[in-house]
Amino acid sequence: MSALQALKTKLADINALEAAGAVLDWDQQTYMPPKAVEARARHASVLGRLAHEMWTSDELQTLLGRAEAEAEPGSVDAALVRIVRRETSLKTKIPAQLVERKAQLAALGHEVWVEARAASDFGKFAPTLAEMVDIVREEANCLGVGDSIYDPLLDQYEEGSTAADVRTMFETIKQPTVDLVRAIRETNTQPDTGRLIGEWDQGRASEFTLKVVQAIGFDLQRGRQDVAPHPFCTNFSVNDVRLTTRFKPYIGSAIFGSLHEAGHGMYEQGSPEEWDGTPLAGGVSLGVHESQSRLWENIVGRSRAFWEHFLPSLQGSFPELDHYNLDSFYAAVNKVEPSLIRVEADELTYNLHILLRFEIELGMLEGTLAIKDLPEAWNEKMREYLGIVPPNDAQGCLQDVHWSGGSIGYFPTYSMGNLLSYQIWARLQQDIPNTDDLMAKGHFAPIFEWLRERIYAQGSRYTPKDLVVRVTGKPMGADDWMSGMKSKYSALYRLA
Amino acid sequence: MSALQALKTKLADINALEAAGAVLDWDQQTYMPPKAVEARARHASVLGRLAHEMWTSDELQTLLGRAEAEAEPGSVDAALVRIVRRETSLKTKIPAQLVERKAQLAALGHEVWVEARAASDFGKFAPTLAEMVDIVREEANCLGVGDSIYDPLLDQYEEGSTAADVRTMFETIKQPTVDLVRAIRETNTQPDTGRLIGEWDQGRASEFTLKVVQAIGFDLQRGRQDVAPHPFCTNFSVNDVRLTTRFKPYIGSAIFGSLHEAGHGMYEQGSPEEWDGTPLAGGVSLGVHESQSRLWENIVGRSRAFWEHFLPSLQGSFPELDHYNLDSFYAAVNKVEPSLIRVEADELTYNLHILLRFEIELGMLEGTLAIKDLPEAWNEKMREYLGIVPPNDAQGCLQDVHWSGGSIGYFPTYSMGNLLSYQIWARLQQDIPNTDDLMAKGHFAPIFEWLRERIYAQGSRYTPKDLVVRVTGKPMGADDWMSGMKSKYSALYRLA
Repeated sequence: MSALQALKTKLADINALEAAGAVLDWDQQTYMPPKAVEARARHASVLGRLAHEMWTSDELQTLLGRAEAEAEPGSVDAALVRIVRRETSLKTKIPAQLVERKAQLAALGHEVWVEARAASDFGKFAPTLAEMVDIVREEANCLGVGDSIYDPLLDQYEEGSTAADVRTMFETIKQPTVDLVRAIRETNTQPDTGRLIGEWDQGRASEFTLKVVQAIGFDLQRGRQDVAPHPFCTNFSVNDVRLTTRFKPYIGSAIFGSLHEAGHGMYEQGSPEEWDGTPLAGGVSLGVHESQSRLWENIVGRSRAFWEHFLPSLQGSFPELDHYNLDSFYAAVNKVEPSLIRVEADELTYNLHILLRFEIELGMLEGTLAIKDLPEAWNEKMREYLGIVPPNDAQGCLQDVHWSGGSIGYFPTYSMGNLLSYQIWARLQQDIPNTDDLMAKGHFAPIFEWLRERIYAQGSRYTPKDLVVRVTGKPMGADDWMSGMKSKYSALYRLA
Repeated sequence: MSALQALKTKLADINALEAAGAVLDWDQQTYMPPKAVEARARHASVLGRLAHEMWTSDELQTLLGRAEAEAEPGSVDAALVRIVRRETSLKTKIPAQLVERKAQLAALGHEVWVEARAASDFGKFAPTLAEMVDIVREEANCLGVGDSIYDPLLDQYEEGSTAADVRTMFETIKQPTVDLVRAIRETNTQPDTGRLIGEWDQGRASEFTLKVVQAIGFDLQRGRQDVAPHPFCTNFSVNDVRLTTRFKPYIGSAIFGSLHEAGHGMYEQGSPEEWDGTPLAGGVSLGVHESQSRLWENIVGRSRAFWEHFLPSLQGSFPELDHYNLDSFYAAVNKVEPSLIRVEADELTYNLHILLRFEIELGMLEGTLAIKDLPEAWNEKMREYLGIVPPNDAQGCLQDVHWSGGSIGYFPTYSMGNLLSYQIWARLQQDIPNTDDLMAKGHFAPIFEWLRERIYAQGSRYTPKDLVVRVTGKPMGADDWMSGMKSKYSALYRLA
């Protein structure tokens, strides 16, 4: 057996452990009975440890070295060994003891964060966060600090991206976004969103969202949708992709949440089946993944053309929405309004929430922002970027779960996804100029097929930066997003 | 660390792999999308292999030897090492190559059986079955043949039981059962069961069955119920027990199926929490397990007292059942009628189906029955024991899945469960004489508590044979079942 073949056999074992771990997690978030939490944590932790042992084993390292020598440069096998090298390298650079310390603090930190948020008291969370920042700093040092301590952390989620890239991105969009938001506010236009909140029948809502996700290309023979309090997408195989959603109280949670998760899901379903169970399968990075969820959620799902097709059917399921016509519904689901909570933000203000978090993360890591001063910094930036100030920490700096688990360096990938979605769409429209006509007819196949071929079917073969250039002809930038925002919202809000 | 402690740590790893494997299986039978089958098989097989490697590893053998020396005789730890010794010994005696051959033939054999049953043609299945019988014979030889080649096979499912035990059991009940069935038939009484078939609303059926399983003692904080085409009970922890059921077309499938699986489930939930994740937790054998499912299904669930309490509530959910009064409903759900299909058999004729299978298994293993003659032997025994003959193989010797997977020696545990349920109930009634009053009031706690304390809370600490004596004061026998049948059906069918 060649080293490559032996390596693939080892990787299949690791994949089975990781897939089983993902099933345990999916089950925990959808159906698991409440008192099973402790046993589930034990089982998941053993699977995680066994997979980690395999990833970092001498046997795998040896096989990998030999496989690297065997793989034809430029071949799929070469891509495979490159990904495996990156994975094992990330995993071996961080000592097991640090991984363990972080996991323990994350488990504890989550509890502490839940309590602090319930009490709306950042002071309760501050010592834990300070300890977590220390651990993450240590982690960054193990991975190897480049120009910024932020770089190795961001790289874990978005290979090859740096703090400098993120800074450039935000420099391009910050002032124009703030200006556009202000111009919209000054129109004093208030789209009527009141009727979008209600007690929606779950059966009918689920029927509608399943119709929508199937229409855009999600394959229900190779996936399903269930209910979860915090919606997510996971997969255990290219042929087993699980979406979750929630249906109340905002009807948009169901619709746009389903489109969002289906965007992630179609990316996962689109990998070549012969790569299934190998690190070649699946989305290449968080940012590129988010570009697909946001593309389907915002560019397709929040377009007027999309609702030209789907509004009658939605109103058929929920006659209480007959109140709306196409224009008022389109305006309602695209209402721009500075708000306190990131996950509820509209697509225009969303990036400002991320910018704020990026700057705070940088400050914490570089030591220029003392943890105790975090609420003040948060509120100041909210005032500056969005013109509103949280009345308390729960609606301010305690709103996100990420930091309690040590996910620092993660937030920028959300904005990268937003920007990339418009950049990819702009390129797609060069090949398919009549996207509005297609969507208005409910004919999504050409759009899906364009994305499938160029992005989904590439799996993780190319680095994210390479993929972006291959697909769009240029590196990730902010121009397409910014001009997309200006043209969409100038029309919607009749700006001068 | 003591060897005992180190052994327990190893066992926890094995348990995590096995629990994860059980989650994969549950998911496959309940929610998994259809095209995920192949990937799921790959993942499950890796988990199974890794667990098997751990069970049979030198490290575990060494630890076990040292732990056996450490464990205080008579202690719980001594019970633990005894169980682990039995497990590793079963697993190490059968060569990996034979395990692999059997697994492959089982996978293939299942497909062949499905096709042969669809075509109702035993000839299509015969060569595969012959090969499977050869493998099972080899397996028996590896395990060590005692008085009968059947003994080591049965012992895998029911520790310590032998073909001689099974023979004694059937000798006691065979003729009296056949006579009782004949006497019933001669009364020409036909309980009205027609209204029990229908298109039951799943939501209301599920609400009713959940009410029932909770009432008898199943804890929905530590378990749940879902829909599956072939109902089963599985568990991943004492705090995570999953029942499945089906709701159509016979309303009894939902009700008695739910009671049956809840009986298994309460047994699993009842192990001491400190044993969770160790081989001490969980039911001790298939026969004892079946005694609990059958006790709740038949003795409790098919009693007149049970329906005195639950019929009004069932009729509230399904007014189409208002047709029945308590007596006619009680008669309907206890209708005795020789029938072709084991899983649909009433509790009286059921054991005759098992007797037939036991005799055929013995014949195949001992070589006194040629595989090609199986349909004839089957039909002959059906005529002799039940007075009816299958019109084709699909409704005859091809009806059960067991043999295609190589589960030979398994069937008798169903009858052991039936017999044991009445033996245990007879002993319970010495302590709780007013079971009918309690059940008629919907007050199941004293019954549950009696079983919990004596059986469920013992987990696998004692051998099945020891447990039966501890609980009932005598070894498993057929007398209580036989006299239970005579008194119940004499009254129901007004026999002389």
